[in-house]
Amino acid sequence: MAETMRAAVLYGVDDIRVEEVPMPVIDEQRDVLIRIHSVGICGSDVHFLKWGRIGDFVLETPTIMGHEAAGEVVEVGGKVTGLSPGDRVAVEPGYPCRRCEFCKSGRYNLCPDVVFLAAPPIDGAFAEYLAWPADFVFKLPDEVSLDEGAMLEPLSVGMHAARRSGVTGGDTVAVLGAGPIGLTALQAARAHGATTIIATDMVPLRLEKARALGATHVLDAREVNVEEAIAEMTSGRGVDVVLECAGAAATIQMALRIVKNGGKVQLVGMPQETELAIPIYELLLRELDVSGLFRYAGCYPPSIALVAAGSVDVQSLVTHHFDLDETPEAMEFTHAHKDKVIKAVVHP
Amino acid sequence: MAETMRAAVLYGVDDIRVEEVPMPVIDEQRDVLIRIHSVGICGSDVHFLKWGRIGDFVLETPTIMGHEAAGEVVEVGGKVTGLSPGDRVAVEPGYPCRRCEFCKSGRYNLCPDVVFLAAPPIDGAFAEYLAWPADFVFKLPDEVSLDEGAMLEPLSVGMHAARRSGVTGGDTVAVLGAGPIGLTALQAARAHGATTIIATDMVPLRLEKARALGATHVLDAREVNVEEAIAEMTSGRGVDVVLECAGAAATIQMALRIVKNGGKVQLVGMPQETELAIPIYELLLRELDVSGLFRYAGCYPPSIALVAAGSVDVQSLVTHHFDLDETPEAMEFTHAHKDKVIKAVVHP
Amino acid sequence: MAETMRAAVLYGVDDIRVEEVPMPVIDEQRDVLIRIHSVGICGSDVHFLKWGRIGDFVLETPTIMGHEAAGEVVEVGGKVTGLSPGDRVAVEPGYPCRRCEFCKSGRYNLCPDVVFLAAPPIDGAFAEYLAWPADFVFKLPDEVSLDEGAMLEPLSVGMHAARRSGVTGGDTVAVLGAGPIGLTALQAARAHGATTIIATDMVPLRLEKARALGATHVLDAREVNVEEAIAEMTSGRGVDVVLECAGAAATIQMALRIVKNGGKVQLVGMPQETELAIPIYELLLRELDVSGLFRYAGCYPPSIALVAAGSVDVQSLVTHHFDLDETPEAMEFTHAHKDKVIKAVVHP
Amino acid sequence: MAETMRAAVLYGVDDIRVEEVPMPVIDEQRDVLIRIHSVGICGSDVHFLKWGRIGDFVLETPTIMGHEAAGEVVEVGGKVTGLSPGDRVAVEPGYPCRRCEFCKSGRYNLCPDVVFLAAPPIDGAFAEYLAWPADFVFKLPDEVSLDEGAMLEPLSVGMHAARRSGVTGGDTVAVLGAGPIGLTALQAARAHGATTIIATDMVPLRLEKARALGATHVLDAREVNVEEAIAEMTSGRGVDVVLECAGAAATIQMALRIVKNGGKVQLVGMPQETELAIPIYELLLRELDVSGLFRYAGCYPPSIALVAAGSVDVQSLVTHHFDLDETPEAMEFTHAHKDKVIKAVVHP
Repeated sequence: MAETMRAAVLYGVDDIRVEEVPMPVIDEQRDVLIRIHSVGICGSDVHFLKWGRIGDFVLETPTIMGHEAAGEVVEVGGKVTGLSPGDRVAVEPGYPCRRCEFCKSGRYNLCPDVVFLAAPPIDGAFAEYLAWPADFVFKLPDEVSLDEGAMLEPLSVGMHAARRSGVTGGDTVAVLGAGPIGLTALQAARAHGATTIIATDMVPLRLEKARALGATHVLDAREVNVEEAIAEMTSGRGVDVVLECAGAAATIQMALRIVKNGGKVQLVGMPQETELAIPIYELLLRELDVSGLFRYAGCYPPSIALVAAGSVDVQSLVTHHFDLDETPEAMEFTHAHKDKVIKAVVHP
Repeated sequence: MAETMRAAVLYGVDDIRVEEVPMPVIDEQRDVLIRIHSVGICGSDVHFLKWGRIGDFVLETPTIMGHEAAGEVVEVGGKVTGLSPGDRVAVEPGYPCRRCEFCKSGRYNLCPDVVFLAAPPIDGAFAEYLAWPADFVFKLPDEVSLDEGAMLEPLSVGMHAARRSGVTGGDTVAVLGAGPIGLTALQAARAHGATTIIATDMVPLRLEKARALGATHVLDAREVNVEEAIAEMTSGRGVDVVLECAGAAATIQMALRIVKNGGKVQLVGMPQETELAIPIYELLLRELDVSGLFRYAGCYPPSIALVAAGSVDVQSLVTHHFDLDETPEAMEFTHAHKDKVIKAVVHP
Repeated sequence: MAETMRAAVLYGVDDIRVEEVPMPVIDEQRDVLIRIHSVGICGSDVHFLKWGRIGDFVLETPTIMGHEAAGEVVEVGGKVTGLSPGDRVAVEPGYPCRRCEFCKSGRYNLCPDVVFLAAPPIDGAFAEYLAWPADFVFKLPDEVSLDEGAMLEPLSVGMHAARRSGVTGGDTVAVLGAGPIGLTALQAARAHGATTIIATDMVPLRLEKARALGATHVLDAREVNVEEAIAEMTSGRGVDVVLECAGAAATIQMALRIVKNGGKVQLVGMPQETELAIPIYELLLRELDVSGLFRYAGCYPPSIALVAAGSVDVQSLVTHHFDLDETPEAMEFTHAHKDKVIKAVVHP
Repeated sequence: MAETMRAAVLYGVDDIRVEEVPMPVIDEQRDVLIRIHSVGICGSDVHFLKWGRIGDFVLETPTIMGHEAAGEVVEVGGKVTGLSPGDRVAVEPGYPCRRCEFCKSGRYNLCPDVVFLAAPPIDGAFAEYLAWPADFVFKLPDEVSLDEGAMLEPLSVGMHAARRSGVTGGDTVAVLGAGPIGLTALQAARAHGATTIIATDMVPLRLEKARALGATHVLDAREVNVEEAIAEMTSGRGVDVVLECAGAAATIQMALRIVKNGGKVQLVGMPQETELAIPIYELLLRELDVSGLFRYAGCYPPSIALVAAGSVDVQSLVTHHFDLDETPEAMEFTHAHKDKVIKAVVHP
């Protein structure tokens, strides 16, 4: 094995360089080494490129970006079972301490010691190889391509949203914001039985995709008063569940008004504002449940099953492809063309 | 309105007569009067015909059979809102007291005072007209036919099974027994996200239907060792959920062995035996959950939504049609030809 | 029976009059007539007295106030079972339509057609007699006094808060605000197994009561930085559940910061502001659950059981007693002396 | 540190020897070494002594028994935080693989690779020292003694039973069998809000203890028809939850009859029979939930909190004390005197 590999390293704001870095080395027992084939570009990657930080995560040392990854196993540790060289796999990009109260209770995404790809200073997956614990690497069935494998990461967010909000058969669900996450949340809702799915956005391409992927109604928020439209569509009752994926103050506030009495508002999108005014009487007097969402836990296996079964389509989220050397251009392009890009994938 | 109507009245074992009976009269406030169009024949109707009793329900006075009904509203009480003459509707066949602890906590199917169609001495729906409380009568959207409306009753059983057992996205589900209920449970499981669905039966027609309606695997229990086959298909792990719809001692026992550690066994089918030996160590040491099922609660609205959305197909359950005058023949035919009949529907 | 009775009728802001009004008449079937013995004065009664409205409820016609009531059955309708003249009873002050989706699913408190005592224009219980549906009237065991019976109403709010927030054995719970509701929520939390209970307030009497009723720690918010104190007490982890009963913007905001990752914030208190800024990143990135609360459903029977068992003490909430003729003074006194009054009870 | 220590090693049926064995050595990173102070004798220890096996666990090589252990930390691995030499601790006796689907979803007790003390061939805690992973070792607060620390193991079973069965405020609970586990389940039920607790047994000492520890009613099954008595006490409704801790065929069958419609039967006790006849119509037609129980997960922290708060009394379960050298006698005594022993504790 070579001693170095190529990777896209973020040095600072607007300074990303594709260069040689040391090859990762696997832990002898529990890790696998993966030759990376497909890595999706996430909004958070672009955010680091443009602002150098997200919340408490600050880029202080050069860090490889990328956390939506799939590839091929090339080496396995001595105690690894169930994976072998040659296996096509997807990478769940965060592994927890396995010992704290959150890990022990099935909410390992809340573990304070999660190691997460491309969360500085942890290196990510815009690279030729990655060493990762085998229990957070999932073998793909033949029906699932490596590009789809990379898309399991945003799908897992959507799955976590649908599961945490309890979407069930016959539900009416509003998905506010039809970007990559909204489009996976929409499909996860449909896969769990939602029969009326109202998607909103302001970008025509996204609304088209929403329609194609199972929204029964799409509303262009530039043209329609969404709140009034939903009130009318539900005869004033409101929707069972709102999956708020836009992360805008206005949509978060609206979410509390368009949901039914006792309904569920699942927040997914991150707003700019760290403080936000909400209509508190809606929440209180209508006995709503409003929940946050942080990544996902246990969502890779069911996501793979749903993609393999054809119940969810993540292939059509991928609108653009780039080589590893083009990672800087790919990120700039994603940043500049929200009207054209759903997902760009880098192929190391 | 005429003072009498025709109905199929069960007088005793093998003694069912189509005759004139008094027209039902609606409560002036809360009822609606329905002209019945389609009524499915259920195994319980046939059971009463052949044995005169089911558990504590004993036929002691002549009783109209039939409880899977749909039709057209012809009259509404003074306080009824949301329904008008001419509406096409399905009938939820049991209404509860609305006042006991079960009614107040959302489990109205357990109300000890439920009034249920065709549970002697309560008359059923093999008749031209039915008076019924409006809140247990559901308007059908244009996409749902009256035959499908009648099929909402068995579908509600399947829905209740899927909901109570917590089937969720990506689950592997075994459906033991692919009669009318098994076929709705199977579809309800699929609609809630099950991706691997293993259906078993001993009747080829049922296995064909199961395959057509979404089973990913069908096992003919006469030819295959089901337990071994499922162990192999799941690499020894077992399935997430078993929906036991066969009601045979052997399948109930098997259910506890083919489910995963901590998995869920949802009993649906009624066995002949009132006492049954179960492998208790499986239940205890593998921390299983085994649940009974009694009818359904709150399942009509989501069932209608799923049928309207095309997520569930109940039309293809209907294999035979009969006139009201042919009700005796229809019941005999259903009894005699399990290999040919999934569902027979009577049209008054 | 006399044709009139005395009652305390609210005519407008600061205008409450004790006068003769018509005797209530029971529905012949399902109601009982109760001679009222004890009625607690709630903050909402005082609010109507001082402002003439609460949210969408506006005092437009003279209305009898009072909804925390207990008394003795004097007459029962023909279909009433389980209650007889002479029974000592508590009144659950809201009864729903029993027919809508909320009623059928066990969340009848969200029924849009609830009839609630003293919610204008519905008359309340500051009166000698009350006619009420028997299924919302609960017989008191010998161990429970009529004053305690009246206190079941605020206790039911506290119970609903503890149940909805899932307080369980060993939990650390913060109760923000130790007024009448906070003191019942605190006890409900303790009765469900909370072992560390931190109560905060700014009124010494309330903190004393909190300590006496089971708070393991009390914090005077005028003297202590509550947020820092709780962080220190929980080693930075935060509490499992916050029961926010103060209804102040500052405590609602703080609730989201003092709860653990993935923890539960149960809002109970009503703030002045209909819009309120919340720290949205706490909610999102720490995957919190924030829930509203509207009255209660199914909480009277367990509340009675807990009082009868001595697990909850509502007797000591009652600090003052008044005659029916003194209702105006009682309400003024409650309004003016938050430092001295926990609960005043009127005895018609 | 010495190279050997004394331990009670089971060689075969009725052949237990106290002898010198090698000192355990801790993993340098994650383990702690504990000087054992108190170890309870469990029915399973006695079962191995008398039959040499329990289900699939067979004694094939000499194995140290004992898994209810508490002691003092004497050495800690390099990465251990939160524990130091001198700390008084309780040992959760099973640690899982931390990597499988059960571990990741919070049900680590179902992990197929759990390493459990005294489950042959894994050595147990009737020994002077034990090396154990730090995350399954819990520091005891000052209020909790080491004997109580040892009793956290049976308490955790009772806690798991109460939590899994959803006991909540105001519930009526039947605890069938008042041995050591029944007595902890009873207290866990009470700590979660059960207000009526009916305990049954056939041993007077156990019924006395049950009464002292919070049962509101005790029934001696030799003298009373338990089923009739419970029907009468609950006016025919049945109890909310049954905690079946006797493990007898008759009590398991009875459990399904004494629980209310839709109620919960939590199986805890292990019967002799691997197959058992159950009244299946009760389960089906009354829509019961019957659940198994295997050890516990996440129950040590809340158990410690409840003991420290005085909400649960495990001290009074300990009726006898023995030295390590007396372990054989202690086990024989426990076996022979069920009428006198609740729990015997060995002190190495």
